Amino acid sequence: MKQLRIPGPTPCPPEVLQAMSRQMINHRGEEFRNILADVTAKTKQVFQTKNELLILTSAGTGGLEAAVVNHLSPGDKVLGVSIGLFGDRFANIAKIYGADVTLLKFEMGKAADPDMVKKALDADPKIRAVLVTHNETSTGITNDLAALAKVIKSYDKLLMVDAVSSMSSVNVPVDAWKLDVAVSASQKGWMVPPGLAFISMSEAAVKAQAVSKMPKFYFDLAKARKSAELRETPWTPAISVFFGMQVALDMLLKEGLQNVYARHIALAKTTREGMKSLGLDLLADEKYASNTVTAVRANHGIDYKKLSKIMREEFDITIAGGQGELEGKIFRIGHMGWAFEPEIKECIAALKLALPKAGYVK
Amino acid sequence: MKQLRIPGPTPCPPEVLQAMSRQMINHRGEEFRNILADVTAKTKQVFQTKNELLILTSAGTGGLEAAVVNHLSPGDKVLGVSIGLFGDRFANIAKIYGADVTLLKFEMGKAADPDMVKKALDADPKIRAVLVTHNETSTGITNDLAALAKVIKSYDKLLMVDAVSSMSSVNVPVDAWKLDVAVSASQKGWMVPPGLAFISMSEAAVKAQAVSKMPKFYFDLAKARKSAELRETPWTPAISVFFGMQVALDMLLKEGLQNVYARHIALAKTTREGMKSLGLDLLADEKYASNTVTAVRANHGIDYKKLSKIMREEFDITIAGGQGELEGKIFRIGHMGWAFEPEIKECIAALKLALPKAGYVK
Repeated sequence: MKQLRIPGPTPCPPEVLQAMSRQMINHRGEEFRNILADVTAKTKQVFQTKNELLILTSAGTGGLEAAVVNHLSPGDKVLGVSIGLFGDRFANIAKIYGADVTLLKFEMGKAADPDMVKKALDADPKIRAVLVTHNETSTGITNDLAALAKVIKSYDKLLMVDAVSSMSSVNVPVDAWKLDVAVSASQKGWMVPPGLAFISMSEAAVKAQAVSKMPKFYFDLAKARKSAELRETPWTPAISVFFGMQVALDMLLKEGLQNVYARHIALAKTTREGMKSLGLDLLADEKYASNTVTAVRANHGIDYKKLSKIMREEFDITIAGGQGELEGKIFRIGHMGWAFEPEIKECIAALKLALPKAGYVK
Repeated sequence: MKQLRIPGPTPCPPEVLQAMSRQMINHRGEEFRNILADVTAKTKQVFQTKNELLILTSAGTGGLEAAVVNHLSPGDKVLGVSIGLFGDRFANIAKIYGADVTLLKFEMGKAADPDMVKKALDADPKIRAVLVTHNETSTGITNDLAALAKVIKSYDKLLMVDAVSSMSSVNVPVDAWKLDVAVSASQKGWMVPPGLAFISMSEAAVKAQAVSKMPKFYFDLAKARKSAELRETPWTPAISVFFGMQVALDMLLKEGLQNVYARHIALAKTTREGMKSLGLDLLADEKYASNTVTAVRANHGIDYKKLSKIMREEFDITIAGGQGELEGKIFRIGHMGWAFEPEIKECIAALKLALPKAGYVK
């Protein structure tokens, strides 16, 4: 079976794909208003939040930009906690819009250490906000967000979380963990094509919005909130992706969030055990290994480009490579969203045959 | 037949909708790279340009923001030529990002006067850039862009054009008219669901990008251009909408652009003649009446809300109302993209029956 084993876009269920082909409707009419209300309410259920939640037509990165430009002002001191490429990106957005960013960077393949975050906050009491990546797709690490949030919120800082590749696949209780801003995007565990980003905002975040001085227009959440009161979006939304979301959310909620999380825990375990049984080395500290994507070292003679080609051409399975400084050094297997055990086992079996052809010697 | 007669999102052909339901693929793999190259090349054909053209995952407004923030710096003097809501919006984006905007506003329902634009440019030689809406959806007016461009380019100003609701339905030869930046979006005449914006940039625009100091990240065209060299997008693109674009572009080019333009001229004429035969008053100066949307005055006792409800509930036809200060004062009929004579005639016939029930007395 054809497999897209990258950490997003993820494969979509046929029911979702069918919904994507519905004819256009008026985005300011009652039918779309009801869809927007329905999708917003159910997305909030997945976020486990009573906070306001807005839906933007953009990639996840647009959601991260919205988080930054709506809650901060130029000159604001910000702590960017980074364990990889996406942590760097989040901090970089803040920097580009004029924030005074301190980057607290951890070694690739390791999780962020809450004690180090505490030290960084102690070292500079003027820090207003902290940016954290929950699941770092580039290294396959999931931070201990509960522990990080506990530290950060004990200092009453604004906590903004990139939950793009975790939310809906792993447990992210926004209210229980007091996440002021949380961002996700449709093409990850949501089982829907790319095009929509989701952002939730606590009361503290909404207050921060009122005094934020960074410039914004397309991603202006004040405009989006004003439209949301009329059950509309300020700009024309990606209607088809909303159709897909409606179907996918019902599937997720019918399966039950706890069951969805359990399925991802099992899929990740099968993947990691499979990799180890093939003699491969995992990049991630296993204590923090992600349940949505597994990063494997391309060592022992493995030529990643060759491996990727063989997997795709001989087995119809698309795997992902490393990004940035990890390019060529790792490969990654996505197992989020519409993913099941038999596929992962088939993927492992294919790797067993492909690896020796790609130079692997143990 | 169910009809969506609003000026976007527009109805999509079944072939396009079917393409929207294709399974996800790797957005950094060869298959998507080829699709991106194909869609970019054919979109450039419709833009009639050899300029660089980039595709962004956003609504058209995101494309307008990209135009502003990539080519201007805070403090830059900008002339915003506005004949309605979308002209105001374009100028407002520039203002929010710190440009020094002079708004040259014309009466609702009238086109921009090239002589007045010339006077405004003479009055302030420090103006660097001019923002123009080609087709103003809120009033159903198409500016004489050829004449405006001739004036503006004779001053060597950077000319940035909102062609969101004109490009692909009416003739907009970007290179012949020397448009430095032109923006359009998938849900208009392109016959595709919303989610993608298109932006073309002349050599002068690319030079302006290099010195632009407005902050940007998601809409950073330098990043998009760097990715485009690898036939990729910097952030995850709305893949399904690309699938739709591929099919729709082939349909547009097969019909032939001149035939597409002729069809829109005929549709608009049928619409206007129909409205007049019903005794209704057109908002637009007929000399500049749009070929993609017709605005009709809701006078002679017409209750727009009632009319809209009757049209929708009794005839399954969705028409659009007025926006901003025109709310309740006009109604609008979209005839762009996948639209044909019999539908427009059916719409006119339905209006004939609906109008008296909505209070219309002549």
